[in-house]
Amino acid sequence: MNKKIGKQSMLFPSGAYLRGRGTVVGKKEGEGPLADCFDLILQDDMYGEKSWEKAESKMLKEAMMRAVQRAGLSKEDIDVMLSGDLLNQLMSSSFMARDLHIPFLGLYGACSTMTESLVLGCMLIDGGFAQNILAGASSHFCTAERQFRMPVEHGNQRPPSAQWTATAAGSVVVGCRPSPGIPAIRATAATIGKVIDPGISDANQMGAAMAPAAVDTLLNHLEDTGRAIDYYDLVVTGDLGFIGKDIMTDLLIDAGLPAARVLERYDDCGTMLFSKEQDVHGGGSGCGQSTGGRADVGSGCGCSAAVFAGSLMRKLETGKMKRLLLISTGAMLSTISPFQGESIPGIAHAVALEVE
Amino acid sequence: MNKKIGKQSMLFPSGAYLRGRGTVVGKKEGEGPLADCFDLILQDDMYGEKSWEKAESKMLKEAMMRAVQRAGLSKEDIDVMLSGDLLNQLMSSSFMARDLHIPFLGLYGACSTMTESLVLGCMLIDGGFAQNILAGASSHFCTAERQFRMPVEHGNQRPPSAQWTATAAGSVVVGCRPSPGIPAIRATAATIGKVIDPGISDANQMGAAMAPAAVDTLLNHLEDTGRAIDYYDLVVTGDLGFIGKDIMTDLLIDAGLPAARVLERYDDCGTMLFSKEQDVHGGGSGCGQSTGGRADVGSGCGCSAAVFAGSLMRKLETGKMKRLLLISTGAMLSTISPFQGESIPGIAHAVALEVE
Repeated sequence: MNKKIGKQSMLFPSGAYLRGRGTVVGKKEGEGPLADCFDLILQDDMYGEKSWEKAESKMLKEAMMRAVQRAGLSKEDIDVMLSGDLLNQLMSSSFMARDLHIPFLGLYGACSTMTESLVLGCMLIDGGFAQNILAGASSHFCTAERQFRMPVEHGNQRPPSAQWTATAAGSVVVGCRPSPGIPAIRATAATIGKVIDPGISDANQMGAAMAPAAVDTLLNHLEDTGRAIDYYDLVVTGDLGFIGKDIMTDLLIDAGLPAARVLERYDDCGTMLFSKEQDVHGGGSGCGQSTGGRADVGSGCGCSAAVFAGSLMRKLETGKMKRLLLISTGAMLSTISPFQGESIPGIAHAVALEVE
Repeated sequence: MNKKIGKQSMLFPSGAYLRGRGTVVGKKEGEGPLADCFDLILQDDMYGEKSWEKAESKMLKEAMMRAVQRAGLSKEDIDVMLSGDLLNQLMSSSFMARDLHIPFLGLYGACSTMTESLVLGCMLIDGGFAQNILAGASSHFCTAERQFRMPVEHGNQRPPSAQWTATAAGSVVVGCRPSPGIPAIRATAATIGKVIDPGISDANQMGAAMAPAAVDTLLNHLEDTGRAIDYYDLVVTGDLGFIGKDIMTDLLIDAGLPAARVLERYDDCGTMLFSKEQDVHGGGSGCGQSTGGRADVGSGCGCSAAVFAGSLMRKLETGKMKRLLLISTGAMLSTISPFQGESIPGIAHAVALEVE
């Protein structure tokens, strides 16, 4: 049965249902406007562990288990787990998978990992290869800072375009049938993105580096599926931040999308996670996008993972939204590629979620 | 349609055919016993680039393009590309994907990445989500050494159990029909592995760290599919090396598999890539498993990728083998996890390939 549609997209006609969701966030994220959406807000970002890396791994594990619990399932019902994070060799995910002892597929798509895991997870379910899967992603401000930028203790100053890597983990159970008592949220389509390099080499301009990839994925998604942007109540990118969101908006309007619809329907998770008062500069990130320091824009793997599994899925469950297109965005720079003169390529994958 | 079988396995009844293959290896690998199996042997492992990382990325790109070419396809026929490597943030794969401009899913399974990409690629095809995909993996001795161990120039001495990260890239095209003129090699089943930690903390004992995961995956595969080990002409692990291969053999016999069959049917890619005269210590690796120095055992992402796409697939094509179970094996240590007192967990995924 052909489920490929257009150039880069696919449909899930057999049914891939979002059955459960789990989120764990850090203290700062728990002080933001989405505080009441998260399952667990840490009071100490060390989470009782001896290193930030172990804390991040524990956050992801807890988010996974909360999702399983909310789905009314047990660990044994999960056939496959798909996840990733920003750490070298997926340290958070690998050790989480060791502890949970569920068949595991490690993914790396920088901050696009949440949709990468969802897209592949939906294929496993819709294709009949599994009955229930777990998809997730995580990031931690302190692990990302010291790996990608400066020792946190250094307290270096950052430019206004810098984003704040979210300390957050989000996880979703996808299954071949909906959970009883929860409205049936179904993944109906997905679009796999290309790596696109707009030539930006400033790691404090992640939004600008990723926006062209998000635009490309969205335009391909709409063309492949024959949908207009207002098919969706909300089209949301992962962690472009305020600057990247403006660039994306401009590029979409330049590409011929109706300006009013774009302004009305498009938003970015990185701009939702923190309030202006929290002052994160460019927006939240969390899979390698931020630079620490001030904080009103989030980034990182965990940003779109937690905003989606915490806030957006709840809006779908409670009927405040019927159709959502989630486009997590990743910056594929490595810890050494900038030193070798490489610019920062971006990638974005999209998944369409609809209430039945 | 339910394609899940047993606990961790799945079948591909609709058809996922291996249509083309491409391999690029380094100078040392090209002096080994499999030299005539590879498409391109580099005379200089810099491959005309300014850094080893860029050289590895170019090797993977070339292997991908050779696979497409051998399948009688063009780049535009490929719907999705799945690959990974050992470098932080998948530097080789990300920049390869930027250059090829094909929808991309980045994977990290350490040296198990070749089977991870094959398993997911076969699901995309068999599930009807794509018509042709590219699966691949790469490693490079010099990039892995300096990331995981010591500066290469340091020339530090290594223990006899150390393996040699292969400078190698391998790639396969999987499609929904076989290529004309090439015998139809079909992926019939796959098993997704769990992360298993035998508690080994010595990074020069990678074979021992990964063998229990490979044993677990193989035993689950046989149980899930109801096949005996002699269903396969060859069961081959990725890069356990001589020591890991001995451990695996012992564990399989301990688990009740007939000793004669195990000794007759089981082998390891890491022990095939180099000759004893090349003196690599423990065996070939290539996705983070080796330690440089002497060389007669390979390791690394590229080890099982190139041995499979170079030698083993040719044996299937030429009728020397009918049924193969490929089990790439990965060690999920990170560059910092050992410093935080963590042991080295292993993982292994299996894919069954049969000539029709």
